[in-house]
Amino acid sequence: MSSKGMLIVLSGPSGVGKGTVRQAMLEKSSVQFDYSISMTTRNMRPGEQDGVDYYFRTKEEFENEIKNDGMLEYANYVGNYYGTPLKYVNEKLEAGIDVLLEIEVNGAMQVREKMPDGVYIFLTPPDLSSLRNRITGRGTDDSATIDRRMETAKSEIEMMKHYDYAVVNDEIPLAVEKIEEIIRSEHLRVPRVIDKYKKIIGDN
Amino acid sequence: MSSKGMLIVLSGPSGVGKGTVRQAMLEKSSVQFDYSISMTTRNMRPGEQDGVDYYFRTKEEFENEIKNDGMLEYANYVGNYYGTPLKYVNEKLEAGIDVLLEIEVNGAMQVREKMPDGVYIFLTPPDLSSLRNRITGRGTDDSATIDRRMETAKSEIEMMKHYDYAVVNDEIPLAVEKIEEIIRSEHLRVPRVIDKYKKIIGDN
Repeated sequence: MSSKGMLIVLSGPSGVGKGTVRQAMLEKSSVQFDYSISMTTRNMRPGEQDGVDYYFRTKEEFENEIKNDGMLEYANYVGNYYGTPLKYVNEKLEAGIDVLLEIEVNGAMQVREKMPDGVYIFLTPPDLSSLRNRITGRGTDDSATIDRRMETAKSEIEMMKHYDYAVVNDEIPLAVEKIEEIIRSEHLRVPRVIDKYKKIIGDN
Repeated sequence: MSSKGMLIVLSGPSGVGKGTVRQAMLEKSSVQFDYSISMTTRNMRPGEQDGVDYYFRTKEEFENEIKNDGMLEYANYVGNYYGTPLKYVNEKLEAGIDVLLEIEVNGAMQVREKMPDGVYIFLTPPDLSSLRNRITGRGTDDSATIDRRMETAKSEIEMMKHYDYAVVNDEIPLAVEKIEEIIRSEHLRVPRVIDKYKKIIGDN
């Protein structure tokens, strides 16, 4: 059956603006999808809310979920766990609802192995200098951290080849439009719709 | 190199309205592409022009092209040859220009073998009754011909599985918009753009 929802994975180098694009997509909503909220052990930042920005959990709670096969993917990044609870994603997909994940590159690769039918979108910086600006622009990290992130970003761009699509995040509304077009087009992919058409022939 | 043009193959059952959709795309042109004019041995219909609607050729001329490997694909349909001259397509793709083919199902399968990197779009009728209306609506053919076309159409819908996308031709502007979104999204596919990104890393 192809009436299951579609998994959409938005990923890309750290600092490229995944969260901003995801937020813009949630606000614009010209395509329908549910956002899968990640789980993390990092500290809550000012303005963030538990169950909205992330599920904020202790290290012990997170490791329990891992043990119980409750995570679709997870990673340890700069000393903290980040991951996607499996239950919510499966429920929505089974109900025919598209689910958007916004996750780091390593996590996306784990998801790809488990859910190869998903749509894997790699968000890229217009160039690496602007990536550096975005990374440093946050203004909360020391220069060793920034350099390490930069090297990570280069290797992550090498990981682009494991994705289906690459979308440049030069202007948020443009990136959002491209992602929405990708989602709509993917819904027209033959493996996703052929059962519906077979039914039309059968019904006639 | 990924700076080559993209081959876009628009195909589907006989009578589904491929020509009308193609014409609407040429007139709208919110995406850029060149249309590859087919070659045929069938008689010119009122209003058609050689070199615009088709290259109209004699059977002998067409068979010469086949012998000289000059055809990307061809088929014999209701007693006449239809096909795509190879030379034009290759020249445009090499020059970085997208090329649209609007061809029958058998021809599309031949092209797919030779050019697997193309984008294969299957235009479908909303349902088979409306397909029958479209086939009979032309009003120029007897009922045996119409029945044969109907059976052909059913088997062609079975061939959908060899395509990348299925687009319903319920309303022409909607079908055109979907095809344009597919084309724009396909231009964001990683295999088509990764070399460009590798260059960005290299240049930095």
